[in-house]
Amino acid sequence: MALPDWFTALAAELRQWGRWGDDDQLGTLNLIDGAAVQRGAAEVRDGRRFSLAMRFDDQGPQVGSIPGRINPLRTMVAINTPYTEHGADGFCTSDDVVVMGLQASTHWDGLGHVSYGDRIWNGYPASSITAAGASRCGIHRVRSLTSRGVLLDVARALGVERMEPGQGVNAADLDAAAELARVTIEPGDVLLIRTGHAQLYRGRNRQAYTAGHQPGITAACPAWFKARDVAAVATDTLAFDQFPGEDHGVLFPAHLLDLVELGLTQGQNFDLEDLADDCAADGRYAFLLEASPIPFTGAVGSPVNPVAIK
Amino acid sequence: MALPDWFTALAAELRQWGRWGDDDQLGTLNLIDGAAVQRGAAEVRDGRRFSLAMRFDDQGPQVGSIPGRINPLRTMVAINTPYTEHGADGFCTSDDVVVMGLQASTHWDGLGHVSYGDRIWNGYPASSITAAGASRCGIHRVRSLTSRGVLLDVARALGVERMEPGQGVNAADLDAAAELARVTIEPGDVLLIRTGHAQLYRGRNRQAYTAGHQPGITAACPAWFKARDVAAVATDTLAFDQFPGEDHGVLFPAHLLDLVELGLTQGQNFDLEDLADDCAADGRYAFLLEASPIPFTGAVGSPVNPVAIK
Amino acid sequence: MALPDWFTALAAELRQWGRWGDDDQLGTLNLIDGAAVQRGAAEVRDGRRFSLAMRFDDQGPQVGSIPGRINPLRTMVAINTPYTEHGADGFCTSDDVVVMGLQASTHWDGLGHVSYGDRIWNGYPASSITAAGASRCGIHRVRSLTSRGVLLDVARALGVERMEPGQGVNAADLDAAAELARVTIEPGDVLLIRTGHAQLYRGRNRQAYTAGHQPGITAACPAWFKARDVAAVATDTLAFDQFPGEDHGVLFPAHLLDLVELGLTQGQNFDLEDLADDCAADGRYAFLLEASPIPFTGAVGSPVNPVAIK
Amino acid sequence: MALPDWFTALAAELRQWGRWGDDDQLGTLNLIDGAAVQRGAAEVRDGRRFSLAMRFDDQGPQVGSIPGRINPLRTMVAINTPYTEHGADGFCTSDDVVVMGLQASTHWDGLGHVSYGDRIWNGYPASSITAAGASRCGIHRVRSLTSRGVLLDVARALGVERMEPGQGVNAADLDAAAELARVTIEPGDVLLIRTGHAQLYRGRNRQAYTAGHQPGITAACPAWFKARDVAAVATDTLAFDQFPGEDHGVLFPAHLLDLVELGLTQGQNFDLEDLADDCAADGRYAFLLEASPIPFTGAVGSPVNPVAIK
Repeated sequence: MALPDWFTALAAELRQWGRWGDDDQLGTLNLIDGAAVQRGAAEVRDGRRFSLAMRFDDQGPQVGSIPGRINPLRTMVAINTPYTEHGADGFCTSDDVVVMGLQASTHWDGLGHVSYGDRIWNGYPASSITAAGASRCGIHRVRSLTSRGVLLDVARALGVERMEPGQGVNAADLDAAAELARVTIEPGDVLLIRTGHAQLYRGRNRQAYTAGHQPGITAACPAWFKARDVAAVATDTLAFDQFPGEDHGVLFPAHLLDLVELGLTQGQNFDLEDLADDCAADGRYAFLLEASPIPFTGAVGSPVNPVAIK
Repeated sequence: MALPDWFTALAAELRQWGRWGDDDQLGTLNLIDGAAVQRGAAEVRDGRRFSLAMRFDDQGPQVGSIPGRINPLRTMVAINTPYTEHGADGFCTSDDVVVMGLQASTHWDGLGHVSYGDRIWNGYPASSITAAGASRCGIHRVRSLTSRGVLLDVARALGVERMEPGQGVNAADLDAAAELARVTIEPGDVLLIRTGHAQLYRGRNRQAYTAGHQPGITAACPAWFKARDVAAVATDTLAFDQFPGEDHGVLFPAHLLDLVELGLTQGQNFDLEDLADDCAADGRYAFLLEASPIPFTGAVGSPVNPVAIK
Repeated sequence: MALPDWFTALAAELRQWGRWGDDDQLGTLNLIDGAAVQRGAAEVRDGRRFSLAMRFDDQGPQVGSIPGRINPLRTMVAINTPYTEHGADGFCTSDDVVVMGLQASTHWDGLGHVSYGDRIWNGYPASSITAAGASRCGIHRVRSLTSRGVLLDVARALGVERMEPGQGVNAADLDAAAELARVTIEPGDVLLIRTGHAQLYRGRNRQAYTAGHQPGITAACPAWFKARDVAAVATDTLAFDQFPGEDHGVLFPAHLLDLVELGLTQGQNFDLEDLADDCAADGRYAFLLEASPIPFTGAVGSPVNPVAIK
Repeated sequence: MALPDWFTALAAELRQWGRWGDDDQLGTLNLIDGAAVQRGAAEVRDGRRFSLAMRFDDQGPQVGSIPGRINPLRTMVAINTPYTEHGADGFCTSDDVVVMGLQASTHWDGLGHVSYGDRIWNGYPASSITAAGASRCGIHRVRSLTSRGVLLDVARALGVERMEPGQGVNAADLDAAAELARVTIEPGDVLLIRTGHAQLYRGRNRQAYTAGHQPGITAACPAWFKARDVAAVATDTLAFDQFPGEDHGVLFPAHLLDLVELGLTQGQNFDLEDLADDCAADGRYAFLLEASPIPFTGAVGSPVNPVAIK
């Protein structure tokens, strides 16, 4: 069974395998050069910081609909355990352990997270991912992920509190949000695209946030990202893609185009609400974004606490 | 059995409970204000980045000597799993799960990590830590941890490749390293203290790195930290404290003084080797440090991928 | 705030601390002597076996209502991994890892699972349970749990398909079920008490099975158990106790009386449906029961695959 | 690269794919019929029980030499947590969680644990094992594993305390041990083969027990097992096979022949020391063996607490 022609053609057009060499494992993160980082640092004015992380506990975004992707469970292995004969009067220590799906809460998808046509980014075979993890494109290759960040507040540009479940973000929406931001996207920038959908999560309606229809990125967006050479893109949804998509003949087209064809690292479950309020208030939509993954060897994703600094 | 008099007196002198209010849960991280972050951002010159993370896999620093503190074990729950009737031709996804001691690899100790005299930071009872986690001073309170970072390269200041196992870092050593760095420590700075001990870890001698004698911070240092109002301190060792310590009557005195009395967040297993080489080469020992924890609810620590940006 | 007088009096009456010595950690499991095991073996007629286990996967009984008690998550660490230069032609191995709440699916409660009045079984202080586990009454003390088992099919004795949610099993019900079974309960027997509630679990109505009202054991039953010196008791419910109970002044009175006062090991989530059908068909309600826990050191419970052999 | 001719020929000779139907997933466990169970029950004389489990904690058999196969780590999620307004006076509960390699301590290998030539038992493709687990031959298919057990005490038959590391158990050794036992092996029996190697584990020399040379089953034994139609075989070693083997051209030949060709379920890390002493003392080497796995859905193995009853 074949994917739709329009998709296949678009994929071929966007494909940039080999752009950074046949052995590249970073994709568009290569676009974060010193200049991009400096540009980000230059956006720091008064040093205010906004954490974009959702909860890392049993109230994280997962509701059981994705097999194996469990919310963080943190348990104790030591609680004020005395280490000396002083007992409680001397050194006592508490230690904890966590088990979690790496993609459970706020996270980056690594370039090994998705395959189609038996390929991952740069044309590596899908079989690069085994029970031992990602032998290619493991998240540990990404030693840092910090650059200038730009908020594209699509919901605000559309004049709505939050986009409708199932509503698509198209190229015109991105244009409108960029215009609202009055920022020229430059190579190496990291885009944070706001739909407002995370309000459902904040409102503790996890079922609707996670397992229902979701606004999100349409198949038209990756070309927009490529034209501007953005380094990475994150959204305030779980699916990233519009869900359900426009064409039932291809599931999650933006995932396929971004991760496999462009080599574009994607982020999900970024809570952009506080940041968006602040950007609307001061009119500044660019900032330094710090969002380096935990370099789990061979991982196809990583939890992250993204911090925007203005 | 009582702790030594000298320690008790020092603890009383350093104690700053209540300084940020009776309900404070952040301690010296309160010192990271907008000015500190701006000072850090101003250190970004060409945007080079140095990840200070050790490995997050079964070759992480743990060797079994600390009960329950297991190295990260990352396992797969999906490998190129097809989601559509297109099978391998369409959307396929890989997902992973990790289980780990939060203090296993490169990490921050939260202020709930250590107690003595039945107290944690700010005088909260040790019983604030239960099987449900840290009801006070959980790491999730630390929404971000980014500031100006300063490398105090004690090994280089002492003219050695690496300090001897068991050798102490004292106040004069910190002075010498600060002089070498030609940096004036300012309130809110984060100090990275290099002993060179991590070379053992790099050389795959994990047993010696983790379970043997270790160079480290002595009881004299916390006063030095307090005098300069530093926000946090990390080392390139597992123990942080000199081990074994000078006085067998008190175990890990720097832990007790930093975490409990000063409310000073500590980092361990920071690999400072590459950064140190670079600082020696260009003579610049200050940088922007991004080291925000993953905000696990109620955790007494967090893995971190600290990134220094110059 | 005090527990009701009737409960306090009953607890004092049932308490058998010290019966097997001041250092006993097994309670009524001591009653399983060679004679009890022989009595069980003598019930084996044609060797038919009935597993009483519910599912050990993400469709296990847990629905998120009990913090930290996660259904088994099994993940892969090796999938047909070749170990030799023969590759797939030679030795290849698959390995898996599980993480789970020990009380998540079919399980035994260890005697350390519950405390009240700061005491667990035999009068040990509740503080015997720490972050390091149960220093007293850990499940690993129970090296084996096999004896004659007797099905008390209360639902059938009452003439119903399954008991009503919230309905209590009282002493008269046990009498009726024993009469139906035509078995004289003897010291060391293990009782399996059927309410029929597990039909909800079988019918995939986990929410109703786990988080709703449940039929179960009332405060009147422990005296009945003591009078017959039964070794252990399991039910086909999650709560064991009737829920909600008769007196809102004391939660889970059977748990308190069984585990703390009698030292009676309890089982939950035993699927008794197939066994019950068979017992009704052949009129034999006694069998050899094999239900030895996995001896996790210091655990307060253990998963088990109970097998009845007739 | 080809496996040795002698092995290929032997494999073809032993292969019994299809014997229990093309859709069989149990292999020789099918041989445990009612008669085998009755035969086991008939061996119960005075009801004495012997647990054959090694430790289920961080001192389990694993020493880090097998990637991902971690010893059980049990952690707490609740410690005497009060559920009512009575606080510590009322119902308080402790709960724990475990994470472990299913093959870490005493365990059964499921028939999906090993493949070669792209096949598992019954000719199913190796690809039956995926990140979602074993779609064929998952351990949950084994609802019970109880039968007559027979101890083949090879070490004692050879007149040694324990066999030498690397020493092979051959057919003559099995004959000698069966003669010592004065038992005629019958179809459906489960054999426990003792080398004495577990003494190293008992003596806390885990490194030698686990990662060194090991006595064990040679390629000659599976024919012996097949001739007697045994249902399952377990050893007191980690490798099961002699290690290193006799022919460097094929790794773990007994694994391949047992699991893939015969469909014979294997057990490892069975501590047979106490049982062996008892059998030597009373001259009775047959018993009822209870060793039902925990039915983890899709698992390629399961922890077990095997109990021998005499």
